Amino acid sequence: MLNFSFYNPTNIVFGEGQLQELDNLVPKDARVLITYGGGSAQRTGALDRVKAELGKSERSLFEFAGIPANPALTVLLQAIEYVRENRIDFLLAVGGGSVMDGTKFIALASYAKEFQGRERELMNFGFNPVPVASAIPFGTVVTLPATGSEMNNGAVISDGEDKLPVFSPYTFPRFSILDPTLTYTLPATQVANGIVDTFIHTVEQYITYPAEGRFQDRTAEGILQTLVEVGKKTIDDPSDYDARANLVWCSTMALNGLIGAGVPQDWNTHMIGHEITALTGIDHAKTLATIQPAIWRVRRQEKREKLLQYAERVWSITEGGEEERIDQAIARTEEFFQSLGIPTRLSAYDLGEDFIGRVLTSLERHGMTALSERGDVTLEVSKRILQAAL
Amino acid sequence: MLNFSFYNPTNIVFGEGQLQELDNLVPKDARVLITYGGGSAQRTGALDRVKAELGKSERSLFEFAGIPANPALTVLLQAIEYVRENRIDFLLAVGGGSVMDGTKFIALASYAKEFQGRERELMNFGFNPVPVASAIPFGTVVTLPATGSEMNNGAVISDGEDKLPVFSPYTFPRFSILDPTLTYTLPATQVANGIVDTFIHTVEQYITYPAEGRFQDRTAEGILQTLVEVGKKTIDDPSDYDARANLVWCSTMALNGLIGAGVPQDWNTHMIGHEITALTGIDHAKTLATIQPAIWRVRRQEKREKLLQYAERVWSITEGGEEERIDQAIARTEEFFQSLGIPTRLSAYDLGEDFIGRVLTSLERHGMTALSERGDVTLEVSKRILQAAL
Repeated sequence: MLNFSFYNPTNIVFGEGQLQELDNLVPKDARVLITYGGGSAQRTGALDRVKAELGKSERSLFEFAGIPANPALTVLLQAIEYVRENRIDFLLAVGGGSVMDGTKFIALASYAKEFQGRERELMNFGFNPVPVASAIPFGTVVTLPATGSEMNNGAVISDGEDKLPVFSPYTFPRFSILDPTLTYTLPATQVANGIVDTFIHTVEQYITYPAEGRFQDRTAEGILQTLVEVGKKTIDDPSDYDARANLVWCSTMALNGLIGAGVPQDWNTHMIGHEITALTGIDHAKTLATIQPAIWRVRRQEKREKLLQYAERVWSITEGGEEERIDQAIARTEEFFQSLGIPTRLSAYDLGEDFIGRVLTSLERHGMTALSERGDVTLEVSKRILQAAL
Repeated sequence: MLNFSFYNPTNIVFGEGQLQELDNLVPKDARVLITYGGGSAQRTGALDRVKAELGKSERSLFEFAGIPANPALTVLLQAIEYVRENRIDFLLAVGGGSVMDGTKFIALASYAKEFQGRERELMNFGFNPVPVASAIPFGTVVTLPATGSEMNNGAVISDGEDKLPVFSPYTFPRFSILDPTLTYTLPATQVANGIVDTFIHTVEQYITYPAEGRFQDRTAEGILQTLVEVGKKTIDDPSDYDARANLVWCSTMALNGLIGAGVPQDWNTHMIGHEITALTGIDHAKTLATIQPAIWRVRRQEKREKLLQYAERVWSITEGGEEERIDQAIARTEEFFQSLGIPTRLSAYDLGEDFIGRVLTSLERHGMTALSERGDVTLEVSKRILQAAL
């Protein structure tokens, strides 16, 4: 097992009806900015319910709507100005990963007066913490299970063709309310995206090389098995509480630091996927579903032991030679994504050989030239991965 | 899945050599009281290394030695007086569960001036939080993997024949350093106790009734499988780093709130076990190893589905009828404990029929008359359990 630190102070409040805890969770005298995305927070009634709960005490309530998928810096800068003008001292994100990620950036940049006018520079630190000494406190109400942003301190922010990670020790949500019933009205495609996103978050921290992280491996396998068990079911019957609750909790657990503590991590799929989304606008999870199987085909030697373990423990594949079992595990994974309505080839999006060069240019520009758990995925290897994904 | 809250802000710093982080983790100007047990913290050199690290900054260091196994209120009261006299503002527990639990009580009671002179009353709140508004901050350096106290807010305190739980939202350690190499010199019997304690913590939150906590079940099963895989190995070869590291991490994960969030919990074994330890002084884990199998024999109907799931997923028992599979699972569990040198019958400690009445009297005195995940274990059922454990 590798050395590690694990620190996650977010208070999770999980279950049907837990919105009623909002009045206890948000300071009674706060000037609260509620952030959300498009119309769904309004349409589903979640926003009204949030406002009713917050209104039970003497808070000043403000709203900032319109945080888009792949939260755009230009929009966030407007929110930051609004926060400063209105002396906001608590943020409440109501939405999915994009709203939560955008709110983390708002919380950081609004606090960091030293970055005023050059907030863009907060996107330059990659996986290192940004040098800001605090942030405005915030909570979240999760309406889309997928990114795990509700229980981690990371965000991914977009600016034109840049889609980059931002981290800070001060961007853990103070609390996150996860009421599975708030997600019942999501379109099926967004639920499917969430399942695939959660699945890939898990394998990025699991299918690397053996490192004697037995708890971590078994827990990752448990998430994957659960997704396979409940994935199709929760799309077909969105108001099956238990199926949806298991998806919601797995989404959180897949990216809160737990399964990645003390083991190697990959993130190759995410780094390539981010470039594809930035260039084309294809949903984040849908890009991942094309790249992950391709990586396993190209890097099957480097990931050999863990692919075999994955085949056996997640898919119960025990017959046949090693190559055959790996092939079967990759095929079963692709079939699973496809069963949710998610393609596993770039060609499904009319992307061909000519697109690869553009992705490679972006990867190079962002310094993504030594990816994977071993740092051995050069641009040349990324090219082969993209070819295998066509 | 049941509704739940999950909040755990302890910063875990895990791995060989992590003691060197102490200077960063403890406030530089603190008046630090180092708490520890018998001579082992001194004998192993852990104490000297801790003092060397803390001495790197201008701290005032104090020591309180002699916190016994099953931390006794009388001893803790001396420490509380010492804390007040010396205006201690940070505590550092160096030891196992007893030292950590005792330190939590010291942290709470030293702060709570309103309980001065009647600290015993802090033991009267059972599983409810004690009404104290804060506590002295503290960290831990774990030298014995077992209780999970390093990443939770509970303590078990002894006073004569009372051995009672104490909880507070303010008794999460600020940090815990888990360096597996610090545990290499432990006597084999203490390591075995730790394995059994971790095992029982896990099944208390897992072998109840089905509640659609799929992540929780799989994670619990992962801990149990890991203990079975590494248990004997880490006793036979204490300096096998990976085996010991997996034990240490599983011990923490078994009782930090994670696997019990959103699912029913039992704790019947612990409540009866505590009475036996209070009456006889038998090691905590050793009492659990006698009671848990007895509970499964007596309550096999109530725990039927989960016992069958346990048989299949942890022990790969798939042949035979349901009764037979449950019998096998219980037998395999007992064999596992015995393989670690831990008996599974009270008769191994020369306790017979005449002892049962004393335990029942203690249970009654402590209000333990409706135990288990369903609250249906009356004194009459406890009697049958104790008879089945003879």
